[in-house]
Amino acid sequence: MCARTCTHTCSCAHTVQEDVEEGRASIYKSVVSNSCKEMSCYSDFPFPEDWPNYLPHSQFLEYLKMYANQFNLQKYIQFKTKVCSVTKRPDFALTGQWEVITLRETQQESAIFDAVMVCTGFLTNPFLPLDSFPGINTFKGQYFHSRQYKHPDIFKDQKVLVIGLGNSGTDIAVEASHLAEKVFLSTTQGSWVISRVFDSGYPWDMLFTTRFQNMLINCLPTPIVTWLMAKKMNSWFNHANYGLAPKDRTQMKEPVINDELPGRIITGKVLIKPSVKEVKENSVIFNNTPKEEPIDIIVFATGYTFAFPFLDETVVKVEDGQALLYKYMFPAHLQKSTLAIIGLIKPIGSQVPTGEIQARWAVRVLKGVNKLPPPSVMIEEVNARKENKPSGFGFCYYNALQTNYITYVDELLTYMNAKPNLLSMLLMDPRLALTIFFGPCTSYQFRLTGPGKWEGARNAILTQWDRTFKATKTRIVEEPTSPFARILKLLSFLALLVAIFLIFL
Amino acid sequence: MCARTCTHTCSCAHTVQEDVEEGRASIYKSVVSNSCKEMSCYSDFPFPEDWPNYLPHSQFLEYLKMYANQFNLQKYIQFKTKVCSVTKRPDFALTGQWEVITLRETQQESAIFDAVMVCTGFLTNPFLPLDSFPGINTFKGQYFHSRQYKHPDIFKDQKVLVIGLGNSGTDIAVEASHLAEKVFLSTTQGSWVISRVFDSGYPWDMLFTTRFQNMLINCLPTPIVTWLMAKKMNSWFNHANYGLAPKDRTQMKEPVINDELPGRIITGKVLIKPSVKEVKENSVIFNNTPKEEPIDIIVFATGYTFAFPFLDETVVKVEDGQALLYKYMFPAHLQKSTLAIIGLIKPIGSQVPTGEIQARWAVRVLKGVNKLPPPSVMIEEVNARKENKPSGFGFCYYNALQTNYITYVDELLTYMNAKPNLLSMLLMDPRLALTIFFGPCTSYQFRLTGPGKWEGARNAILTQWDRTFKATKTRIVEEPTSPFARILKLLSFLALLVAIFLIFL
Repeated sequence: MCARTCTHTCSCAHTVQEDVEEGRASIYKSVVSNSCKEMSCYSDFPFPEDWPNYLPHSQFLEYLKMYANQFNLQKYIQFKTKVCSVTKRPDFALTGQWEVITLRETQQESAIFDAVMVCTGFLTNPFLPLDSFPGINTFKGQYFHSRQYKHPDIFKDQKVLVIGLGNSGTDIAVEASHLAEKVFLSTTQGSWVISRVFDSGYPWDMLFTTRFQNMLINCLPTPIVTWLMAKKMNSWFNHANYGLAPKDRTQMKEPVINDELPGRIITGKVLIKPSVKEVKENSVIFNNTPKEEPIDIIVFATGYTFAFPFLDETVVKVEDGQALLYKYMFPAHLQKSTLAIIGLIKPIGSQVPTGEIQARWAVRVLKGVNKLPPPSVMIEEVNARKENKPSGFGFCYYNALQTNYITYVDELLTYMNAKPNLLSMLLMDPRLALTIFFGPCTSYQFRLTGPGKWEGARNAILTQWDRTFKATKTRIVEEPTSPFARILKLLSFLALLVAIFLIFL
Repeated sequence: MCARTCTHTCSCAHTVQEDVEEGRASIYKSVVSNSCKEMSCYSDFPFPEDWPNYLPHSQFLEYLKMYANQFNLQKYIQFKTKVCSVTKRPDFALTGQWEVITLRETQQESAIFDAVMVCTGFLTNPFLPLDSFPGINTFKGQYFHSRQYKHPDIFKDQKVLVIGLGNSGTDIAVEASHLAEKVFLSTTQGSWVISRVFDSGYPWDMLFTTRFQNMLINCLPTPIVTWLMAKKMNSWFNHANYGLAPKDRTQMKEPVINDELPGRIITGKVLIKPSVKEVKENSVIFNNTPKEEPIDIIVFATGYTFAFPFLDETVVKVEDGQALLYKYMFPAHLQKSTLAIIGLIKPIGSQVPTGEIQARWAVRVLKGVNKLPPPSVMIEEVNARKENKPSGFGFCYYNALQTNYITYVDELLTYMNAKPNLLSMLLMDPRLALTIFFGPCTSYQFRLTGPGKWEGARNAILTQWDRTFKATKTRIVEEPTSPFARILKLLSFLALLVAIFLIFL
């Protein structure tokens, strides 16, 4: 009997496939990470310091390979194997074991596993709501889901409509706008759009994801958080003036990350439109005007649904975009907790370290080192999340998979006894404590103490900004020494007062 | 005898020519205006309200045609005619007349003109300083001046080096980075780079070019202005961290306008480099490291020089990038002021209205309605500018053609008796006065009074923001009514204090 832990990894693409493969995630040529290298690395394996802050997919893949080599993992991975089914063994209540049927080329195999971790993600099954687009069947142009998109060449001199203001929709509209005759980007709900290049040029997620801000957000009433958020989001550009304002600001959706969209709007290359009312043979009517806009290509960037076709509904049931899982991981009702879902979560932070921390905790649960609460307690908690009752403080999340990154990770760290104690650290190592509290919540923090502790963690935290700037500071100019900066500030303030006085004289 | 006014316009291109023509300006396919529609229109002819804020070249050409139609100008323009020479007539001291020899197809013609306006611009003769690049003759790849650039296709999968951090160099590097294998952008001096999408998304030039700010700048000592400028320029991104910091901050160069550069740097698609030390057969060595970087294509975005090959040196002499002209327009030493150069100036503001106001004043001078000072006074002023002595206040300009837009335009308006009196206006029409003083210095202000007054000017000023947003607000969402915004602000401040208190508890 084969008894080992099986991790089904879905999207280990080697290069961008020009053909979209059924049942596997698909990306386009220009995809660049939305989460910067310091925020999205594995907790004991920082990216090389001269790599860019936001990585093209090919470089990210290289990193994954480097990681696998570093920890000698390749030998545990069996590629090119489709998992057909994962079913409970007859003696599951006793052993917690699973029967896994796989297909490798034409060879079907069956094996018994003590535990299973499912890491298939949520970006494989396209959501294509054609019913919401009356007349789409009469449309004579080309239309497809964003999943099919690979390269902007197809848009050359075409009139393009992209539906959906998510990361893919925005990327595609912006790329199309360099070649197309006209590009419309249609959104019903709107969204906050931010740039990777955030305040003073720091990576957005290194400024957003700090323990200090997280604490503030969790302490403040939701209306204040919402209002502060709107203020911050509008500092790059006023979303209402650019047609992007979110309709509902009370529920937090993940912001769209794009560096170019407002620049394309202000130069007239992308036109933002409300939802589509009707599709005609060669044109589209939007909901704000009876005017028909000629359209050649429609791209449905309408997102994804997720499913576990290899699992029985009695194991994991997906309902209204939710799988009812304890801590987003464990089916709450199983007699034995020997199956964990990894990465079925959208933390407003970073996906990779979230998956890693989930895997670390899952392994401890599967091994029996950490215990889960009794099913009744887990079911109760899962149901409470299903209801999604706002607490009145912090953010309300729009999507069932969304959660607060730091709060969630800290919870799992606590279970593993790996959460650093900031208070005692403030006495022992104040520099580190302050960097952890006010600086970006990088994943090295999860390796400072407890099981899985990494000796390099402290240094990695203290050098995180060095690695960040190393990649962009490729031409160095001596900064003008300005001991007078403060005096200048004071003087200029006085001069300003005098000037204002003079105006009204 | 033919006696009329001849305006030699150089770059009335109809569409982007795919071939570069000797002696004519050249643009690339993706060129978009750097100056927004409200700042760059003719003073009595606003752009259509639904046009984008920053216009693609083809739409700008359409506007010029609309202007020519509106004022019935086409009949005065003789296209496809090369001006071979403009020489003083023997009786110039008496008549001020010029003999102009032209070439139309193969037909040479000669005609006598009472006055000549030269509007050839300063972007025709490429400056290609190959001597500063040791080894360039051994380079086996392709190299060319940015003037030759039309389309990024040539960069596909190539290793590209762009030399020069000006508007063209930056545009080309950014465009190349979507297709190329690697892109380096080399700059010796560095530069401030700003986005068209400025604070809160307002067009950069509508925020920068206000009478209020101009007054402040002119009142403040140069070091303070320089320091405030650096602060403002670094708010989008810290230029030092992105390798772009200007070496010399005391002299003001026009900022580079680009919406995408920092986004391309942070994603590693464009690498900023210092100056080139040596070019080898297939590589380049930069000045900061002995490492050879393989390069396939070098683009010299090294700017332009200007010249007047059809004018004798005794009429206009160009020396060290300067033509010694009174108010950037009139050769100071001529017995008769019947020749004016239009548009040989780089106001940090907008080119089109500057050229227009120059033309308006020039016509009055040529007609004898306005008089110039005696040559001795003009020569003295011209020499003073040539020395470029900093005044100690406001900006020091790096380039001899650069000047303060509002100050310069106001000077010409004063000569024409067309400068609005803000003080009296404050009493008669305070709304207009405040909009003029604190709002963008749009060219409609030059048509409020005096000769050439336009009845629509007041309304055009008061509706300038409406036209600005009309183009981008193409999806309208009702703004959440927030009568509590102020209360929220106060509450959140209190909560912040409490939170900070709690942290240190």
